[in-house]
Amino acid sequence: MKPEHVIVGGGSTMGTGAPVISDAVRWGDLVLLSGRAAVDQATLTVTSPEFEPQARAVLADIGTVLGEVGSSWSHVLRVEAYLAHSEDFAAWNRVWTDHFTPPRPARTTIVTGFGVPGILIELQVTAGIEAR
Amino acid sequence: MKPEHVIVGGGSTMGTGAPVISDAVRWGDLVLLSGRAAVDQATLTVTSPEFEPQARAVLADIGTVLGEVGSSWSHVLRVEAYLAHSEDFAAWNRVWTDHFTPPRPARTTIVTGFGVPGILIELQVTAGIEAR
Amino acid sequence: MKPEHVIVGGGSTMGTGAPVISDAVRWGDLVLLSGRAAVDQATLTVTSPEFEPQARAVLADIGTVLGEVGSSWSHVLRVEAYLAHSEDFAAWNRVWTDHFTPPRPARTTIVTGFGVPGILIELQVTAGIEAR
Repeated sequence: MKPEHVIVGGGSTMGTGAPVISDAVRWGDLVLLSGRAAVDQATLTVTSPEFEPQARAVLADIGTVLGEVGSSWSHVLRVEAYLAHSEDFAAWNRVWTDHFTPPRPARTTIVTGFGVPGILIELQVTAGIEAR
Repeated sequence: MKPEHVIVGGGSTMGTGAPVISDAVRWGDLVLLSGRAAVDQATLTVTSPEFEPQARAVLADIGTVLGEVGSSWSHVLRVEAYLAHSEDFAAWNRVWTDHFTPPRPARTTIVTGFGVPGILIELQVTAGIEAR
Repeated sequence: MKPEHVIVGGGSTMGTGAPVISDAVRWGDLVLLSGRAAVDQATLTVTSPEFEPQARAVLADIGTVLGEVGSSWSHVLRVEAYLAHSEDFAAWNRVWTDHFTPPRPARTTIVTGFGVPGILIELQVTAGIEAR
């Protein structure tokens, strides 16, 4: 069995001309997604200065990757959330409960910094998928 | 195959009336737990101002979740530890070596912030479980 | 099925006489590695004060663990990277693209602190391996 590397659209080029990472890798019945943030890959700048638009953009983006792999929101097992500011925790819970219907995934939320200035939230998703 | 969502007791309500996340999600022979901290879910305040009591409370709490799922300490594969202060690293190693007997799980320890004030340690566990 | 604990050489002793953690744990077709940093296990000090030597040392170290387990670079599924300084993000991308040839793994990079002073990069790898 070989890992299946998934690159969506132009990929995560991080300002270069080619994808630097895979957007997700499938291994059997698991899909491990890369951390996603609301960053324009051509300019390496955030797409909004505000938390909720960033959070919703990241979730939309993850939905695209899940769809490309053939997984789905109902198969998201765990979401690791990295926030720039603890003050955004309540807003994060609102976006989360809006987006996922019960029973929701497992989740961890911590406060960290990021490689690209202006990122307010980054999400790393681990999902399941039916084995072939 | 569908993910099995595990909610223990009243669940992680985070100050709301209903669970916001699953405490763990089982997928085949894997169990992905949510990050756990020593936080009272009704009041969203920490249950102790000190490191070791928090660490021991989190481990006890994780033991409850593992038991509820049907996994166990001997099937913990990796522990991701988030500390508020690097000064607590030695205390964390003491709690860790007290709690786990060799051969111990894989582990990563980093220093981060948290969504709830006063958290000194949060732990994210990935465990195995016999496939059905 | 039981988790297989992997300890390489003297193990991660963290200044004690015996391994405190496993360097990796295998569970079926998955290998979960501990977070690795360029730290001398006897003295708990970093092996270089500079980013790129640390990053390359960590990758070499991970290669040793992967080899010991029987996995390989081509089976690395996801790399979680923790940087001390966001200013090292570009250097991290250079080391990454030098080390991995496309298609590369999934990756998440965040900025955090560490338990041992002077760590500039720590990497946590999740890899696949053929099931027995």
